Amino acid sequence: MTKATIDMNADLGESFGHYSIGDDSAMLDIVTSANVACGFHGGDPEVMAQTFQIAREKNVTVGAHPGYPDLWGFGRRLIPFSAGETERLTAYQIGAAQAMSAYAGHPITYVKTHGAMGNLAERDAEVATAVLNAIEAVDPSLALVAGAFGELERLGRERGMTVYTEIFADRAYTEEGHLVSRKEPGAVLHDVNFVSDRVIRMVKAGAIETRSGKMLSTQMDTICVHGDNAASVAIARTIRTRLEGAGVTLKAFI
Amino acid sequence: MTKATIDMNADLGESFGHYSIGDDSAMLDIVTSANVACGFHGGDPEVMAQTFQIAREKNVTVGAHPGYPDLWGFGRRLIPFSAGETERLTAYQIGAAQAMSAYAGHPITYVKTHGAMGNLAERDAEVATAVLNAIEAVDPSLALVAGAFGELERLGRERGMTVYTEIFADRAYTEEGHLVSRKEPGAVLHDVNFVSDRVIRMVKAGAIETRSGKMLSTQMDTICVHGDNAASVAIARTIRTRLEGAGVTLKAFI
Amino acid sequence: MTKATIDMNADLGESFGHYSIGDDSAMLDIVTSANVACGFHGGDPEVMAQTFQIAREKNVTVGAHPGYPDLWGFGRRLIPFSAGETERLTAYQIGAAQAMSAYAGHPITYVKTHGAMGNLAERDAEVATAVLNAIEAVDPSLALVAGAFGELERLGRERGMTVYTEIFADRAYTEEGHLVSRKEPGAVLHDVNFVSDRVIRMVKAGAIETRSGKMLSTQMDTICVHGDNAASVAIARTIRTRLEGAGVTLKAFI
Amino acid sequence: MTKATIDMNADLGESFGHYSIGDDSAMLDIVTSANVACGFHGGDPEVMAQTFQIAREKNVTVGAHPGYPDLWGFGRRLIPFSAGETERLTAYQIGAAQAMSAYAGHPITYVKTHGAMGNLAERDAEVATAVLNAIEAVDPSLALVAGAFGELERLGRERGMTVYTEIFADRAYTEEGHLVSRKEPGAVLHDVNFVSDRVIRMVKAGAIETRSGKMLSTQMDTICVHGDNAASVAIARTIRTRLEGAGVTLKAFI
Repeated sequence: MTKATIDMNADLGESFGHYSIGDDSAMLDIVTSANVACGFHGGDPEVMAQTFQIAREKNVTVGAHPGYPDLWGFGRRLIPFSAGETERLTAYQIGAAQAMSAYAGHPITYVKTHGAMGNLAERDAEVATAVLNAIEAVDPSLALVAGAFGELERLGRERGMTVYTEIFADRAYTEEGHLVSRKEPGAVLHDVNFVSDRVIRMVKAGAIETRSGKMLSTQMDTICVHGDNAASVAIARTIRTRLEGAGVTLKAFI
Repeated sequence: MTKATIDMNADLGESFGHYSIGDDSAMLDIVTSANVACGFHGGDPEVMAQTFQIAREKNVTVGAHPGYPDLWGFGRRLIPFSAGETERLTAYQIGAAQAMSAYAGHPITYVKTHGAMGNLAERDAEVATAVLNAIEAVDPSLALVAGAFGELERLGRERGMTVYTEIFADRAYTEEGHLVSRKEPGAVLHDVNFVSDRVIRMVKAGAIETRSGKMLSTQMDTICVHGDNAASVAIARTIRTRLEGAGVTLKAFI
Repeated sequence: MTKATIDMNADLGESFGHYSIGDDSAMLDIVTSANVACGFHGGDPEVMAQTFQIAREKNVTVGAHPGYPDLWGFGRRLIPFSAGETERLTAYQIGAAQAMSAYAGHPITYVKTHGAMGNLAERDAEVATAVLNAIEAVDPSLALVAGAFGELERLGRERGMTVYTEIFADRAYTEEGHLVSRKEPGAVLHDVNFVSDRVIRMVKAGAIETRSGKMLSTQMDTICVHGDNAASVAIARTIRTRLEGAGVTLKAFI
Repeated sequence: MTKATIDMNADLGESFGHYSIGDDSAMLDIVTSANVACGFHGGDPEVMAQTFQIAREKNVTVGAHPGYPDLWGFGRRLIPFSAGETERLTAYQIGAAQAMSAYAGHPITYVKTHGAMGNLAERDAEVATAVLNAIEAVDPSLALVAGAFGELERLGRERGMTVYTEIFADRAYTEEGHLVSRKEPGAVLHDVNFVSDRVIRMVKAGAIETRSGKMLSTQMDTICVHGDNAASVAIARTIRTRLEGAGVTLKAFI
């Protein structure tokens, strides 16, 4: 079964004050949805307003991208917050993103978790529940973007929430359909041609391709690409062009 | 003209992690509205959720209390943010307060600015406009609490916003109805009996009493009392008791 | 064997800006050494300067008390810093404490780690080594205060560093001489009479008393008491008075 | 009078965690002294250790570069700290820099203030005195780098401190020898050829060249070049090459 359309998302709005990360404006010409940092692991009110505004101008769907309050570690350190604390710091960031996106005239429509908090929520039912609780408490109309075969996706659907399932363009998958840990060799794929070909195979099959080449069928709504380094723009553009060349239409999931 | 009812507000939710300020639970038995810090000059997601929840249980109206991002200075340092930056950092905090109050099942209904940012907004039309812009952009249904005779009140009414005017129980007023600077002697009144008597006089007259004893007629919706030190609870309780003894009903403005 | 003299230490200087913790001035009348927070988990340059200055006036020995950069969590969250990162953030804080204590005319003479970082260093040889590396790199003349039966003490002595061994007045000990986790019931002892009697027994015996009442002989140079809450001063004073009544002289270890 | 040798300095070590600014390694091949951020307006313990280590390998003299605690504003916001607070937050950062540079085996030998704090110290005698007090309290053997015709230089020499006077390669000067405010047009010079020629003229004359072309004789020990953007490396290299071509030797002042 060929999937005719899919969304492409990236983590954007991660700059902070004088510190710049990625080329958000260029990325917003490529992706169809943008996960915008909320000021805890990256971003600040200025950056958020600008990112939402550029996304509005370029007609890119936006979502909140909450993470741990760890600017120094960019949200990648697994700080042992309790599930309750995670629930509340997620709620806080969703609210901040709602306000800044309303301010920019382009309200967020979904939530996707970041970094260490996101990784934990994918595998820990209690933390996943905390994230879902936060979304529902703040605004139950918000959708969730979650990785395939994870706790967030499973519990979100169980609750009847709108869940969009994502696959990663440049990350290797285990035989269970989970991301290979960044600590293992080969976790991140760097060859843009291989990455593009694999994405096309996955989208066409509606399945995740594991390290061994096995295809695991899954709901598949969006492809995550990176936006945080110098090479990101070129890679994302290539993936998009190759997908379109293969007959896939890029379109926001919402 | 005797005013039959008035609101009493205090700045609460200013604790941070292990650091505690004031006795919020006791204050929430006394005041009828609570200005809740939003995590920039004080407060954190845990403290916000708890404060909103206790306010809900005690049926106290709640508002966002945004300030400069200056935990070290408790929002009292006049950091030279541009009006635009002030607009956006206010919007961010309003959103965070909306989320945390929704999370606690007790949504905010107003905004009151804090500390150095609030003082500047009271006297600088450009900064006042920034605050008003932030409120309208995030949620135009939110009311504004502003000091008498200031730019926030004037411009808020000019826009047709719902504005509640506040007087300060323990602060001396200039002949123009502005707060005497804390740098001047006598700026803060410490004698609880004098403070209570003066509040009763002001409420009964619907007028601010200046240092010289002149009465300046003004809209008057709420009395601000302090909640951030050991003596606060007793002083606030005395003021409330004395007001009630004088026939004034304490009731939230909204 | 009766120990004639011992030091008594407390964690002080943990206030931050407008946020106050403990009554440092009162505690500095009781303890003979003060572990001063370095601005990462608590403290700031103002608080550090004041604490070192009061300690100088009261002739109390001072040390650096570095912790994780986690003001929100007061240094009690186990943030997964690498050993190398721990080494460098410890070095940074030791330098800051050296500067602020020199500024106050009362230089630090030792280092004691704080909270989650300290607990980890006590049981993890790699992290303990990082702390020791930091001390030696910054100033090898600084002594180390470390808990009995831990990795810091063991590795510090192995290197030939000056190590002062501490026992905790109000913490229960396992049969191996380690602190009972705060997550277990009975980890913290609250009865000041029991605490005082136990301290006297331990000091007189030169041994740690375990939960079961077993006495484990150990080097013992200083007793740690708490300084961070309202009851701390009275408890510390009672312990000191009772120790002196039992013939023990309180005196700084250095 | 032709000056045979001069130092060239740049502000380095301003990256923070995942956020990178400038190409420090390349700049350290060009400059002869490096002002290293101390973790308040930029930098962190990891960045500091790395910067000091690379400077050691490349034999570049290093100094502490303290600024206001304002990572968001990169130390460029004029936060109204009192002179006393400035004194202590400067002392703190000097200590941190001493520790991290000792850790890297390459101790700092001087202090140069950053951004808004530095600008204020250049024109405000009380703040300049605070900075000098901090240096003397922490380590009187440290030298000071200060702008020509400013309060820091004047008061530093008055005290008998070792002061190295700097000129800025790419900043316009008023007729009094002060920096033209960045708010005025033409404050920053962008043409590398003009900048190089002007530097050579100034170094050869031992004088600052004002906007009108007047030459103001001054002590001149070091030339400040920028290191914080993509173009910095090429500009700094050109200035250095052109200076050497004009017979000037680049050599650390200390």
